[in-house]
Amino acid sequence: MEFAELIRISRCDRVMLHQPHKAVLDGTLCITGHHLIVSSRDEEPQELWLLHSNIDTVERRQQGMTGGTLWLKCKDLRILQLDIIGADQFAKVSDTLEDLTRVDEPTLLYPFFYRPMYTVLEDGWTAFLPESEFSRLVQSGDDWRMSYVNKDYKVCPSYPSAMVVPKSIDDNELVAIANFRQGGRFPVLAYRHESSAVLLRSGQPLTTPNGKRCKEDERLLSLVLGRGKRGYVIDTRTQNLSQSAKLRGGGYESELHYPNWRRVHKPIDRHHVLIDSFTKLMDGINDNSSGMDKWLSRLENCSWMNNIKETLNCACLVAQCLDQEGASVLVHDTDGLDSTLQVTSLAQIILNPDCRTVRGFEALIEREWLQGGHPFALRHQKSCYTPSNQRTKGTHSPSFLLFLDCVHQIYSQFSCSFEFGESFLIMLFEHSYSSQFGTFLGNNEGERVVMKARERTTSLWSYVNRPEILHQFLNPMYEPNQRVIWPSVAPMSLQLWPAVYLRWVVDQAPQDAAWSVVKEIKERDSAIRSRVSRLRRQLQDLEKEAVANGIISQSIVNPGSPEPLEVA
Amino acid sequence: MEFAELIRISRCDRVMLHQPHKAVLDGTLCITGHHLIVSSRDEEPQELWLLHSNIDTVERRQQGMTGGTLWLKCKDLRILQLDIIGADQFAKVSDTLEDLTRVDEPTLLYPFFYRPMYTVLEDGWTAFLPESEFSRLVQSGDDWRMSYVNKDYKVCPSYPSAMVVPKSIDDNELVAIANFRQGGRFPVLAYRHESSAVLLRSGQPLTTPNGKRCKEDERLLSLVLGRGKRGYVIDTRTQNLSQSAKLRGGGYESELHYPNWRRVHKPIDRHHVLIDSFTKLMDGINDNSSGMDKWLSRLENCSWMNNIKETLNCACLVAQCLDQEGASVLVHDTDGLDSTLQVTSLAQIILNPDCRTVRGFEALIEREWLQGGHPFALRHQKSCYTPSNQRTKGTHSPSFLLFLDCVHQIYSQFSCSFEFGESFLIMLFEHSYSSQFGTFLGNNEGERVVMKARERTTSLWSYVNRPEILHQFLNPMYEPNQRVIWPSVAPMSLQLWPAVYLRWVVDQAPQDAAWSVVKEIKERDSAIRSRVSRLRRQLQDLEKEAVANGIISQSIVNPGSPEPLEVA
Repeated sequence: MEFAELIRISRCDRVMLHQPHKAVLDGTLCITGHHLIVSSRDEEPQELWLLHSNIDTVERRQQGMTGGTLWLKCKDLRILQLDIIGADQFAKVSDTLEDLTRVDEPTLLYPFFYRPMYTVLEDGWTAFLPESEFSRLVQSGDDWRMSYVNKDYKVCPSYPSAMVVPKSIDDNELVAIANFRQGGRFPVLAYRHESSAVLLRSGQPLTTPNGKRCKEDERLLSLVLGRGKRGYVIDTRTQNLSQSAKLRGGGYESELHYPNWRRVHKPIDRHHVLIDSFTKLMDGINDNSSGMDKWLSRLENCSWMNNIKETLNCACLVAQCLDQEGASVLVHDTDGLDSTLQVTSLAQIILNPDCRTVRGFEALIEREWLQGGHPFALRHQKSCYTPSNQRTKGTHSPSFLLFLDCVHQIYSQFSCSFEFGESFLIMLFEHSYSSQFGTFLGNNEGERVVMKARERTTSLWSYVNRPEILHQFLNPMYEPNQRVIWPSVAPMSLQLWPAVYLRWVVDQAPQDAAWSVVKEIKERDSAIRSRVSRLRRQLQDLEKEAVANGIISQSIVNPGSPEPLEVA
Repeated sequence: MEFAELIRISRCDRVMLHQPHKAVLDGTLCITGHHLIVSSRDEEPQELWLLHSNIDTVERRQQGMTGGTLWLKCKDLRILQLDIIGADQFAKVSDTLEDLTRVDEPTLLYPFFYRPMYTVLEDGWTAFLPESEFSRLVQSGDDWRMSYVNKDYKVCPSYPSAMVVPKSIDDNELVAIANFRQGGRFPVLAYRHESSAVLLRSGQPLTTPNGKRCKEDERLLSLVLGRGKRGYVIDTRTQNLSQSAKLRGGGYESELHYPNWRRVHKPIDRHHVLIDSFTKLMDGINDNSSGMDKWLSRLENCSWMNNIKETLNCACLVAQCLDQEGASVLVHDTDGLDSTLQVTSLAQIILNPDCRTVRGFEALIEREWLQGGHPFALRHQKSCYTPSNQRTKGTHSPSFLLFLDCVHQIYSQFSCSFEFGESFLIMLFEHSYSSQFGTFLGNNEGERVVMKARERTTSLWSYVNRPEILHQFLNPMYEPNQRVIWPSVAPMSLQLWPAVYLRWVVDQAPQDAAWSVVKEIKERDSAIRSRVSRLRRQLQDLEKEAVANGIISQSIVNPGSPEPLEVA
């Protein structure tokens, strides 16, 4: 076992665990390679199992030789307090936990040790292959093809092995374009709208201060538009930032060389700005001394709601271009790994009803985030509780959480249009930071191939899509809505997401109860419908028999007009 | 017709009406004594009917001789824009509407002209008489009696004709106490908790700087507590304000003369402070230029959320005293007409599950607000859109709306524990400002008796409690909860009420749809259950007949074990 040397102590008695909304647990602490376990000594034992990878930071306060208190601040935003007796035990537990949470060699993580106790019906690793996701598009038209130029992840390390590109651009041209785009991220198709306007994403063009050009890049973007059509480049950086990016070898599409593309800057905060915002938000929430004024002032100062607004705003703009102007859109920032993916995926949720189903939303996360190369391992290595001086600038960021929050804002406004409920989003938030499943491991498909995630770990989708599990995430109010949904982005219509940010501070049980009631009514509805069908059949059988025997005439059997059973 | 002289113009063609979330309506304006009506000239005519009493303020902008634009800012928070052609017509319409909205002689208002088109089944005017509301309490014990000392509204103009007071205090003593309490509001019983601790309310004692006393008042409050028990006076003013009230002839209960009562100050904003807060809130909401930062800053500065927090906080404190300490509580501020009623009624919602039913909530509003003498006519004469220099200090105030908002906050946290949904609260908000019903007319029961509201107008409850109307206000998620419910008052768990404040700015239709879906499922559930019962009966009849005729043996009829039908 690789962890033996890290585990200085594997068992510690008489610890006191303080958890939100629960009675203090007086029990035994066990530390395994992947879990921290606290079990009570009661007759009905209570237990806490916590993955080490869920721990964002360990804060210790020693009290002389008597022991001390550990605060485990988790990536699911929970804060646990552990009182440990004895200075030696306290030090050993603290050191062990600190070391175990620092393990970031992915193949040492729990997904490589976890074995599911159920039969996998549909393998999540093969459920969303680009070939099947884009099959209709690639097979139906003359415009788009699947390219395997990146099959060994060398042209673009953050891209998947298969992508959709314009048919008339060959792989050699793609290689040339990859050399001209940040991180090799040449423009690829994210979504084609019914108007046949398309949504593309990429990294920034490396125009440099010398105004470098790439004919192949210009040709690709010109081809995409078609004759006489105009498109939009949505740059999620400020104009200044795009300008100054040239000095660092980056740049933007000049209107001179991309004459049919109009550039629009819609800045969205990323990286350290975003995680600082998140840290401030959680500081405010965890400060239970705040009055209303102080809280609202902190909420304003942390800018989290503003980040939501700007991101949604940009996604709405993209959706408008596609749906109302029928114009194609290319989205990028510098790397195309964060705000770019937020915007392209949110635009699809607005435009495409498929993305509001469970399967469609899973596919969206696969396409845009996992195959799209969002570096989950780096971004989620540290979260909001890690002090900013222990974070690496440009590495850690809650981009995916901000995306989920934006989805939740849309969901709050259009609760009937989503097949899943908010618990599905919360589950994704949790698993993206710490999980027994391999889905969110590594930084891109290439890394997951190297670590053999597909062969050696279970996919989150394999678990989630089992009917008995999926059931709990379904939205009882779902009514498929084929229309484009336009969320309000007025600042007052955006609200803090209590079920994620407040759940450990304010007990959400009464709110959860409402959800359960609706689910129960819906389930009873289904159950009673099938009971009606059974009774109907029984009645018909009896009727037939009675009529056949001449005991009852047809008129007695059906005394009134037949009552239609509207079982939808 | 009394309005003839006010109506300078009764019809005006070619007006353009701009309403929130609706297409512009091009049509004819008609002005009657009580309504402004705009009808389109389309084949499928669209119409707006607006009670003049709903108009808070009329703002006009004339455009030379061509006409002008009127902004009608309504008490239901809607803002309507009316474009009128011709300077003469514009002036006449404007003057007419301004005059008609100023009519405040209650018997000229619409409730005295409105005739319901349906048969009143249960007269709302007699549905909540104190004798029946308090019958169990008065009949069962030796401690409380019904007093009619105020039967002609002379002892206390703002009190009803019947009240519950301690049995050992006679009517002469009540008169003496009334002389010692602001507005004659001697302490009366609002609620007796199951612990038999009681909630009382009153006006401030008129102790004056001379330290005036009233033996009868001291005796009443001492009697209420019982031997060896302590109680709390919750004063909803700051300590300073209570102190300085002495100089104006008011005061507070000194611990010297009320030795078993502990005084606690929980200040809650009232009157002009509260309406200014409301005005700032709505200014912020109607300013569509706000970014997120500006909006959050305005939300903080307006203090509306803080008002909610402080009011709920105080209600929770009262509920804690009663439920957890078993201690009686007397609540008052100066007059006992605003924050006092908010607190006593919210405490009952927290403590008493009956108040969370439709009938119980109506009874609560009758007892605490209508019979309790909240001056609806004065308070709701003007609302947030009237400029502060046109408001009378201490007269206009959204106290009742703040109460409804607090109820909504509790409802949001315990959605299953209320028999009614938020639409019921919104309906009460609207009718309390402007209505065809007489329930909220005048400032107290005495005024309603003088204007013969009971004989000459219809009660809101007579309308609302008809099954076909009530139906739309019921909460499909209701599951009776007999427990005390403790709302979180952490600042981050309180949220702006979109369905009231935002509905004219941000279309709430998608949110309303979710509600409809749940209602539909619930209704289908009921329908299908009764269908099951019918089918069962049919089946049983057929079985009996078949068995009686010896055609089918019992074992064929019941092939399996009987399937119980759990129809709750």
